[in-house]
Amino acid sequence: MLKLFAAKHTVSLASALILEELGTEYELCLVDIAARAQREKPYLDINPKGRVPTLVTPDGILTETGAILEYIAPNLMPEDAFTCAKIREFMHYLAATMHVNHAHKLRGKRWADLKESRADMTAKVPQTMSESCAYVETLIMGPYIFGSEITIADAHLFTLSQWLEGDGVDINIYPKLAAFERAFAARPSVAAVHAKGLL
Amino acid sequence: MLKLFAAKHTVSLASALILEELGTEYELCLVDIAARAQREKPYLDINPKGRVPTLVTPDGILTETGAILEYIAPNLMPEDAFTCAKIREFMHYLAATMHVNHAHKLRGKRWADLKESRADMTAKVPQTMSESCAYVETLIMGPYIFGSEITIADAHLFTLSQWLEGDGVDINIYPKLAAFERAFAARPSVAAVHAKGLL
Repeated sequence: MLKLFAAKHTVSLASALILEELGTEYELCLVDIAARAQREKPYLDINPKGRVPTLVTPDGILTETGAILEYIAPNLMPEDAFTCAKIREFMHYLAATMHVNHAHKLRGKRWADLKESRADMTAKVPQTMSESCAYVETLIMGPYIFGSEITIADAHLFTLSQWLEGDGVDINIYPKLAAFERAFAARPSVAAVHAKGLL
Repeated sequence: MLKLFAAKHTVSLASALILEELGTEYELCLVDIAARAQREKPYLDINPKGRVPTLVTPDGILTETGAILEYIAPNLMPEDAFTCAKIREFMHYLAATMHVNHAHKLRGKRWADLKESRADMTAKVPQTMSESCAYVETLIMGPYIFGSEITIADAHLFTLSQWLEGDGVDINIYPKLAAFERAFAARPSVAAVHAKGLL
């Protein structure tokens, strides 16, 4: 059985959502990020990066949301190679640009040592996250990113959209993104992960 | 025919390398990053993100290295789903962690406004890139990342390894990474992109 290590307020939500969407049997292990459990043994033995999510599979350990989502949901990938590429492109943007923008709010010490630098980074997050929202807004076909059917990228975007209020961005400035967020929030997978303490 | 927009010293090298590895016919369009051509029309009409690479395909425009590489090289992906996932995991780490670490050297204004913050970020790059190298070192099976055959992740890692000297990291501290870099550098694909002015 798959085992997912995850934590509230992190991108690991996306992996749990797709497991719920598919009705996959899995064990959810909540990691106490507030106590920095992800930076201590025994977690570091499982995932030396000290981050969530980590998926334990019969074949081995898997990290990185974009890789995990496609592994657990091959049947959610379309037949068409170009559409698959567009889904991967979207998730690479979320992982390497939008998520990174968000991380500069509280995780600035990854990239700078001075307190003043980190305050400067934090102050810029509403701007960079707004730019990411404006870009994403141009891509959403509605109600989901690629139209009427969800893809793995939707769970990823829904997860990042939960961070916007805390990042000082009013989602309602972006009507397609706001409608997407409401549509996804109504799915049973969201209620399921909420009941399990992950949202 | 595929058309690749690319520029020296950027991650777009990885896409060109895989096109050369496969012997795919493509048109290479060098973008003058020094003149900020990627931030001007007509390039922004092709890729509103204002970044390279951009791949123009018969089906439409594609961006993000991880998505492009898999699209142009489906035959380089293994049959086994878990190994595919490990390749995607590796490329997500390169894109969202190691490349982001590197970007803090010269692209700090993406995330901070003050000159002092950007100097602080730049100063930390040798440390964060060293950490990324140390992590990657634990993953390389040798001579290539996943053993004796190259995957798309190898072209991605080779590209980032070209930045290490400029980032103040001595690759020779990481023997597996150094051996990987030498093995990949000897491939005809590297000579081919060099001859085309991309390396």
